[in-house]
Amino acid sequence: MTLMQVHSFAEGRWVPPGAEAREIESAVTGDIIARAGGAALDAQGMLDHARRVGGPALRALTFHDRARMLKALALHLTEHKQALYDISYATGATTRDHAFDIDGGIGTTFVYASKGRREMPDARVYLDGAPEQLSRTGTFLGQHVCVPLQGVAVHINAFNFPVWGMLEKLAPTLLAGVPAIVKPATATSYVTELAVRLILDSGILPPGALQFVAGGLGDMLDRLGPQDAVGFTGSAATALTLRSNPNLLANAVRFVAEQDSLNASILGPDAAPGTPEFDLFVKEAVREITTKAGQKCTATRRLIVPGALAQATIEALSGQLAKTRVGEPQDERTRMGALVSREQRQDVRAKIATLETEAERVHGDPDAFADRPGAFLPPILLHCADPDAARRLHDTEAFGPVSTVLPYRDLDHAVALANRGEGSLVASIITHDPEVAMQAVAGMAAWHGRLYFNDRESMSESTGHGAPMPHMVHGGPGRAGGGEELGGVRGVLHYMQRTAVQGSPTMLQAIGGRHVAGAATRPGPVHPFRRTFDDLAIGDTLTTEERVIRSEDIAHFAEFTGDTFYAHMDDAAAARNPFFPGRVAHGYLILSFAAGLFVAPEEGPVLANTGLDDLRFLKPAPPGTAIRVHLTVKGKTPRTSDYGEIRWAVRVVDGAGEAVAEYDLLTMVARGG
Amino acid sequence: MTLMQVHSFAEGRWVPPGAEAREIESAVTGDIIARAGGAALDAQGMLDHARRVGGPALRALTFHDRARMLKALALHLTEHKQALYDISYATGATTRDHAFDIDGGIGTTFVYASKGRREMPDARVYLDGAPEQLSRTGTFLGQHVCVPLQGVAVHINAFNFPVWGMLEKLAPTLLAGVPAIVKPATATSYVTELAVRLILDSGILPPGALQFVAGGLGDMLDRLGPQDAVGFTGSAATALTLRSNPNLLANAVRFVAEQDSLNASILGPDAAPGTPEFDLFVKEAVREITTKAGQKCTATRRLIVPGALAQATIEALSGQLAKTRVGEPQDERTRMGALVSREQRQDVRAKIATLETEAERVHGDPDAFADRPGAFLPPILLHCADPDAARRLHDTEAFGPVSTVLPYRDLDHAVALANRGEGSLVASIITHDPEVAMQAVAGMAAWHGRLYFNDRESMSESTGHGAPMPHMVHGGPGRAGGGEELGGVRGVLHYMQRTAVQGSPTMLQAIGGRHVAGAATRPGPVHPFRRTFDDLAIGDTLTTEERVIRSEDIAHFAEFTGDTFYAHMDDAAAARNPFFPGRVAHGYLILSFAAGLFVAPEEGPVLANTGLDDLRFLKPAPPGTAIRVHLTVKGKTPRTSDYGEIRWAVRVVDGAGEAVAEYDLLTMVARGG
Repeated sequence: MTLMQVHSFAEGRWVPPGAEAREIESAVTGDIIARAGGAALDAQGMLDHARRVGGPALRALTFHDRARMLKALALHLTEHKQALYDISYATGATTRDHAFDIDGGIGTTFVYASKGRREMPDARVYLDGAPEQLSRTGTFLGQHVCVPLQGVAVHINAFNFPVWGMLEKLAPTLLAGVPAIVKPATATSYVTELAVRLILDSGILPPGALQFVAGGLGDMLDRLGPQDAVGFTGSAATALTLRSNPNLLANAVRFVAEQDSLNASILGPDAAPGTPEFDLFVKEAVREITTKAGQKCTATRRLIVPGALAQATIEALSGQLAKTRVGEPQDERTRMGALVSREQRQDVRAKIATLETEAERVHGDPDAFADRPGAFLPPILLHCADPDAARRLHDTEAFGPVSTVLPYRDLDHAVALANRGEGSLVASIITHDPEVAMQAVAGMAAWHGRLYFNDRESMSESTGHGAPMPHMVHGGPGRAGGGEELGGVRGVLHYMQRTAVQGSPTMLQAIGGRHVAGAATRPGPVHPFRRTFDDLAIGDTLTTEERVIRSEDIAHFAEFTGDTFYAHMDDAAAARNPFFPGRVAHGYLILSFAAGLFVAPEEGPVLANTGLDDLRFLKPAPPGTAIRVHLTVKGKTPRTSDYGEIRWAVRVVDGAGEAVAEYDLLTMVARGG
Repeated sequence: MTLMQVHSFAEGRWVPPGAEAREIESAVTGDIIARAGGAALDAQGMLDHARRVGGPALRALTFHDRARMLKALALHLTEHKQALYDISYATGATTRDHAFDIDGGIGTTFVYASKGRREMPDARVYLDGAPEQLSRTGTFLGQHVCVPLQGVAVHINAFNFPVWGMLEKLAPTLLAGVPAIVKPATATSYVTELAVRLILDSGILPPGALQFVAGGLGDMLDRLGPQDAVGFTGSAATALTLRSNPNLLANAVRFVAEQDSLNASILGPDAAPGTPEFDLFVKEAVREITTKAGQKCTATRRLIVPGALAQATIEALSGQLAKTRVGEPQDERTRMGALVSREQRQDVRAKIATLETEAERVHGDPDAFADRPGAFLPPILLHCADPDAARRLHDTEAFGPVSTVLPYRDLDHAVALANRGEGSLVASIITHDPEVAMQAVAGMAAWHGRLYFNDRESMSESTGHGAPMPHMVHGGPGRAGGGEELGGVRGVLHYMQRTAVQGSPTMLQAIGGRHVAGAATRPGPVHPFRRTFDDLAIGDTLTTEERVIRSEDIAHFAEFTGDTFYAHMDDAAAARNPFFPGRVAHGYLILSFAAGLFVAPEEGPVLANTGLDDLRFLKPAPPGTAIRVHLTVKGKTPRTSDYGEIRWAVRVVDGAGEAVAEYDLLTMVARGG
């Protein structure tokens, strides 16, 4: 086999490794299979390329454009998935592991593609929250907006997930409209390089949106400024070095880290042997130890179980772990592959030795595969009888198939032990008792980026303790790095600046692309229901005729619908109610009459009323109230090539012009000029 | 006058300054009026006190409890406002300045009290966003929650706003449920000490919630951990020292800074002399130069104006500044008081000298008041003819009544100049042209924490370039510190951990205190409309009888309401619509019949339907559809002692059990057992 030369991609061209390149070994055979690093890269040139070429090109697109781009990327990678599978076995990962790394990375990209279309506007400015009232009559308002950073995101990834690790950072970054420079860990950089080649060859990304560094970043971090961001996944020691970089500190450069984490899993006090939860706990624990040979930042390191159940837990776990077949990643019968390298295995063995100063090894021999080439290690289970006295158990991350059982006295004790990790990415609590869950949240949530509850109700669909979902934030306080990634749109906003905008309704409407109450509106000669999606503009408005709500209407509506609530039927009783002057019209009658006033009945571009948001009944409407409706185009969101959603601001006013009801009405409207 | 001894408040007792105390001079007379610092404080003891006493006491309260506490504090401070006014004159601040510091601080506290009640739940866990679907059938879901940090917030404040500076950090911190240790700048610490005394004497706060350090923090920052947070306002140099603290870095301690900022104000290309915007620009600029003698982190330092208007702007500004009466702060005729100290004045004079290397001084003499005691300085205006060549103008913050006029060629140039501040707290754009506003947002928003637009439409109610509103975020990237405070609930969340919670609907419902679709519900023998607010529990549910929507009902509803949209009237036309199988019931008919099914008509605890959220019509209902309603208590929010809001999850299903419509219904319900 010829040596793979892991190229970098800088300023639009592929650059081979240099003379100083590092050699990369196969996790399985120990043979040198690739070299990476030492490429002749110009850090400043790469930053300039991203800032001057990639950034403007991405910012010219809308969120929906960028979401479509992500979808195309995810589809393209799906098509070429097998090539990524094939190259990844040498990292020690099994086919099952590839599902986490390769399928997981693609899936994350799909989720961002979908959320970008569903939860972000087809615009370049993202509105964060609703307008804020800053004045009495509403001529001066506030609105938070998010816009893309004008710099570049530098992503420094760990070796364990060469594909997911890149895509979970890249998808939100690109959706934000920010170019990225990706630097994977060298040990598995040949996998990431292939993924980058696939992405670039697809031609889906604009030039400058993605660059790739195999090997070191040189002095790139010293050249970052206030509009740049660094995302790091790796060890706490490296994170500390990076976040202490004087230039990053002086420029307040955003630095997000996922680092060490002594993740815990708690067996609930209710989850004794014989319950579905006990079996579930064992199953999840074994999965965490064996998946990716335990090389997951989210893997469970500490199994916190009721003292009385420690022995039963150890027996159940040992029984399962004994069945774990360790071997060639390609072999279908293999349940666990190899660590990424012998160097990494050496590190894990040293950590096991450290843990053994406080805990007894109850399963697995760290030297079991010493005579075999490659970086194989069997599952290791330890038991610490006195977890309160232990210290290293709570701060030593053996990044391999290693976990320790810790007994607890009561739930408070379990919570305290979990928190002794000083900040983690995830803790799980396997319990069927909601009281246990509530107590765990109160005691633990502040220390863990994610709390994973599982029980008989959720176990058939649960996604696993160790799997960060793109919908949920990933990160944790303290030792875990104090960072946060993913979490749907939240992860996109980490690459954007949130800015408070203040001004008149007219200004905020122009800036946000969404109608703001009080802004100038445009009445037109044509009923807006007669106009297409593409023809309607924010602020287009219709004011209807008036209709008087008569006493008979209320009585009739009550009788017809069956809604004979006393406030509509009985004047004296209604007057006793703190909210009504006497008998009043039904809210739904007001809505219905309002629709009768504004609907254009004939076939036309408006296809359907799909919903209604934020309806508030603001003023009671006694019999005799004359209502009319102001209907204004508030927002536009394309949905397909055939139609889009028009959000209408509806204001139902009485004869005095005061609002009786306000709401957003959602309709699907056909496209076309 | 006896010297004020500025005490610290540590571990529940007042501690006098020590022998090493610093002397504090009056800004007005130059006399020594107070001493602060050198107190015998035990940093670890203070932290322990906050963590062990203050934190648990605050966390035992709900957001509404804490909001009520803030309201009581704000009322108490309002009552004692005059004492704060009286003591503040010695800082050089005028009565008008007190409105920013003292009234502004109290007002911020009121806003947080109000937002805590209106925008946060009466609970201990804050729900961030909606549940996330993580599974096909919905047995496993995600929900982001925010819980208070379990540590302490250390607030390090600047000299210029001894009251607002404390309260703008303290109000969101306490609302979050986190205790604070406040360290003001020594120069004006005697004012903050009085505010702290007023707060503590009121007895409103639980023990340990607030401690106060006059003087230095000692090694307190070296003792912080992952659950603590530091909020800093002051110079970039000090911020850099603090954020470089190895312990803060190693523990990923949250560090939020507001630091230097070369805030800009742009005169729009449309805002020529003679327009209301030109006069407005001059008025705002003069206010920024003179308020607090220019000692505001948000004050305008760079006035960016069309080149052709530079001379006119300078003349207009100089005319106004010449009328500014500088003098005794107590004197009603005074428009501008003194800088905080002669040392500070010396610093400003040095900065002016630096600016004069790149700009010409066109108004004011820095030595005008050299013969007077105290730290008086007149307004200073400079003009830089070549702002592209200038460097110090864009990085030197003269923290006094100093501003420079910079000419621009076109809007892109103005935007580029504003961004050369490398990150600011606020930039204002005075324009009546929405196109200018849109272009400014696209080019500038990423560089400025706040963009303030003003024009003839908003000027009578606008809050001022320099006034951070509690509703809007305050902070900015790069030189401004990369931090963010305030912004309503956003500012509260900075003192909380956002944690991703995953589990079954039943678990998430228990944890979040809000009904989650799919969670266990409790049908009861009594109609929920017959039960009081206090008697109803999350998950209480009612399933109604069935009602068939007949063809005649649809026709009658159309005729009665006037909503004769063709999809309800004409089978063939409706079938041509992509959303409908043929003629279908009106959405409002479904809502109305649903209400008829679930409403209990007699007088009872349910007082009014106040609104409706997130209504979606999910499945068309052709004639003959039999609907029934599932009504479940989703959320409870107390509003007054008499009633509270019950949010009902409403699910209208058809004969096949499939959802026709889903929405949240809001009602006011009387309290009582």
